[in-house]
Amino acid sequence: MSEKQKKPQKLKARLPRGFVDRSAADIRAVDEMTAKIREVYERYGFDPVETPLFEYTDALGKFLPDSDRPNEGVFSLQDDDDQWMSLRYDLTAPLARHVAENFNEIQLPYRTYRAGYVFRNEKPGPGRFRQFMQFDADTVGAAGVQADAEMCMMMADTMEALGIRRGDYVIRVNNRKVLDGVMEAIGLGGDDKANARLTVLRAIDKLDKFGPEGVRLLLGEGRKDESGDFTKGAGLGAEQIEKVLFFVGIKDYLESADHLAELVAGTAKGPEGVDELNQIAHLVTSAGYESDRIKIDPSVVRGLEYYTGPVFEAELQFAVTNEKGEKVVFGSVGGGGRYDGLVSRFMGQPVPATGFSIGVSRLMTALKNLGKLGQDEVVAPVLVTVMDGDAESMGRYQRFTQALRAAGIRAEMYQGNWKKFGNQLKYADRRGCPIAIIQGGDERALGVVQIKDLIEGKRLAGDIEDNVTWREARVAQVVVSEEDMIQRVREILAHQADDRSRAGRG
Amino acid sequence: MSEKQKKPQKLKARLPRGFVDRSAADIRAVDEMTAKIREVYERYGFDPVETPLFEYTDALGKFLPDSDRPNEGVFSLQDDDDQWMSLRYDLTAPLARHVAENFNEIQLPYRTYRAGYVFRNEKPGPGRFRQFMQFDADTVGAAGVQADAEMCMMMADTMEALGIRRGDYVIRVNNRKVLDGVMEAIGLGGDDKANARLTVLRAIDKLDKFGPEGVRLLLGEGRKDESGDFTKGAGLGAEQIEKVLFFVGIKDYLESADHLAELVAGTAKGPEGVDELNQIAHLVTSAGYESDRIKIDPSVVRGLEYYTGPVFEAELQFAVTNEKGEKVVFGSVGGGGRYDGLVSRFMGQPVPATGFSIGVSRLMTALKNLGKLGQDEVVAPVLVTVMDGDAESMGRYQRFTQALRAAGIRAEMYQGNWKKFGNQLKYADRRGCPIAIIQGGDERALGVVQIKDLIEGKRLAGDIEDNVTWREARVAQVVVSEEDMIQRVREILAHQADDRSRAGRG
Repeated sequence: MSEKQKKPQKLKARLPRGFVDRSAADIRAVDEMTAKIREVYERYGFDPVETPLFEYTDALGKFLPDSDRPNEGVFSLQDDDDQWMSLRYDLTAPLARHVAENFNEIQLPYRTYRAGYVFRNEKPGPGRFRQFMQFDADTVGAAGVQADAEMCMMMADTMEALGIRRGDYVIRVNNRKVLDGVMEAIGLGGDDKANARLTVLRAIDKLDKFGPEGVRLLLGEGRKDESGDFTKGAGLGAEQIEKVLFFVGIKDYLESADHLAELVAGTAKGPEGVDELNQIAHLVTSAGYESDRIKIDPSVVRGLEYYTGPVFEAELQFAVTNEKGEKVVFGSVGGGGRYDGLVSRFMGQPVPATGFSIGVSRLMTALKNLGKLGQDEVVAPVLVTVMDGDAESMGRYQRFTQALRAAGIRAEMYQGNWKKFGNQLKYADRRGCPIAIIQGGDERALGVVQIKDLIEGKRLAGDIEDNVTWREARVAQVVVSEEDMIQRVREILAHQADDRSRAGRG
Repeated sequence: MSEKQKKPQKLKARLPRGFVDRSAADIRAVDEMTAKIREVYERYGFDPVETPLFEYTDALGKFLPDSDRPNEGVFSLQDDDDQWMSLRYDLTAPLARHVAENFNEIQLPYRTYRAGYVFRNEKPGPGRFRQFMQFDADTVGAAGVQADAEMCMMMADTMEALGIRRGDYVIRVNNRKVLDGVMEAIGLGGDDKANARLTVLRAIDKLDKFGPEGVRLLLGEGRKDESGDFTKGAGLGAEQIEKVLFFVGIKDYLESADHLAELVAGTAKGPEGVDELNQIAHLVTSAGYESDRIKIDPSVVRGLEYYTGPVFEAELQFAVTNEKGEKVVFGSVGGGGRYDGLVSRFMGQPVPATGFSIGVSRLMTALKNLGKLGQDEVVAPVLVTVMDGDAESMGRYQRFTQALRAAGIRAEMYQGNWKKFGNQLKYADRRGCPIAIIQGGDERALGVVQIKDLIEGKRLAGDIEDNVTWREARVAQVVVSEEDMIQRVREILAHQADDRSRAGRG
């Protein structure tokens, strides 16, 4: 390590650790997806607003998810006036700053949405990136649970707008106040028990992973995993454990609502929380959203510290095969909840708010699994090849290319070293070009061009398997006058599009 | 300053210096604009690719524009493995890194585009922000000037796709090699004269601002401005100055081409540069782009150090009134050029490249000036008001709202404190809601709703000036059965849209 390197190293091209480049296919998939999400949010009356990527570090607060250490996990630097700035780690804290800073101009209740990159200064791992995109919607200045109910319905509509079938997703709803009530009911209320509560919450959050028996161990003495590692438990007694397990084990909320109300009776906020859950259930049911779409589910524990009331999670329920080859449900693609304290940190008055955040990459992965992306097919450009490099010929090829483009046809002139013609066709092949236009000296003299149907050419050569309903083979190459070029290119592209859609149906 | 503040301060909500929040109107305008740009780029055969916001600092190099001090002006921080990372200051350096890193997978020539935020760690000022958006297109692996010619045509098409009329814009083209030739011809060639060249280039760059006489002073002894401040000049002799002024004063390239060729004859790259300019002129003319769209103009000096050949600038020529009340041409909205050295820094081989970058905010300002944005009108939501807060009523209002949304109508239920009905109508007014739906107990008993046409209401009240072609007044309020609500809302929205389009025509 400390040895001096004597050779000057060539500058190495490498992505910073934990960051990725995005491919054309991914960019198009995200654009297609976010356009659909945006359409739903707009229909719900939400308007876009965006904040910059930096905030003053103090404005972000100590609300980093799943972290005991405030301000760990963010990228920070000191400005030239010595103030600390950080890259935002979510879109909620910056929105709170925005609303507080513009409080007099903003008309409340304020419904907004935004998509943007957030940053986590964490150890990168497989599938764990340090820059990723979230798509959030928030309502600020709405104290009633009708705003939370609206969030849930909007998320359900969003899932369906993306092509996810009813039954393949569910919006799960819980309430932080009920959770707090249960904590109080088992003797873990009060500020001095915050750490103990956190241990219990973490145990509950493992329900999907370890099942009720695993959680029972984590709530009690502790749990030893297969490797022999021991996780110390919350140290609860049997009666306490039963109460927690009853709570998180609730499958049918309506059946259990009375029992739950009993459990939290007399606690500071528990009854209010149960009442809010009941109201949400009533509101969404009135609007036709049954529990197959929006489900009260007391096992939902959202990691963020700042939630104060209802919390939600959008879960995809279809099975996928994980890296170990096991069938598992796809799981959460987003979540949110009420955060009545976040804006008021800046204000002299309470400002209630509720919101929802979608993890864009994760949702995109899900949609790819379902085959619901890539509907907006992008065809590669028509290639105008270059046979002669003199200025006059180049001008002609350029003119053909511009004429195609002006007719709305995606086209490009070959820009590499034109002298090896084989390279141009190899380029067209790798790029997936549907058609090549060729004009050498002979064609030039006659005022014609050759049009090669590269897709049909491959089919005739047997290079692509033919799963198209039987049809007569087209000729893969025609010679037409320069004037007829555009019309003929249009026809061939239309034939190819027909073939693709027949293959899709086949 | 050094006095201790004893009171704990309330957390202050403030944007970091030099950063801005983006309003709904701006976000929609940028989306509308970038969608049109993207369409042109796609038609030219370009595909999207994106890099993260961070790069390793060494990969960005010392190519910061308009800065003598390498790596000043960027936001940098040290990663936990001690490597320095910086936020990108443009989209070109990261693309060079991307291509070099994926050189074996990428099919050259590689046409790509991307829009994204870039960062400058500079003193913020009016209209000078530290985060802003660029929209770039690049072709990598194309050595010939046909790629540069294509960039210019694509930019011209982009301007027209955005609604900027021919004559209101021009793509100006120069060549760094010609510039270098002129420098050599006046005795400023060679690495040891780099600083002197920079002083001359800066003087040339002031042509728009100070005119030829001002530039003459800056090329000679120096120039004193109105405040008495003196800028030291480049110290050139009379003959040198004349040559430079001839060069940058060229108005009609074709007329002056021979004289220019003479001026740079015998220099290392000057004749090659002139030849390239001639070829570009020929190529674009062949494709039908005359000098009213793409103009060879030797006064174009792009600030960036890394250009090696043709350079371009998109200039808007219509007049706007500046902050001093003077009429000035709007000026540059983007530029670019050939940067053959940027990718090869990472490689053992030369990798030619050319590209173009649009300043998104500046172009948006221009389009707003021209009234070319906001075509994609977004109507505010229909407001379902809340008259009763019991669960049953709330459920009903929620149901109305969801029914409107399901019918594709932008709608929202009032989410604030419903008890003061006046507040709800005030909210609808400020928000610009077109329609309010009202159902109190009486209407409920009859199974009807009131529908208020808020726009017609304002018109009848004389609150909005009526520039609509005369028509009979509609009633501003109707009572319909619950079943007919959606149909009636649709009709009123359609009437309002008619009125808007008539007012637009009037």
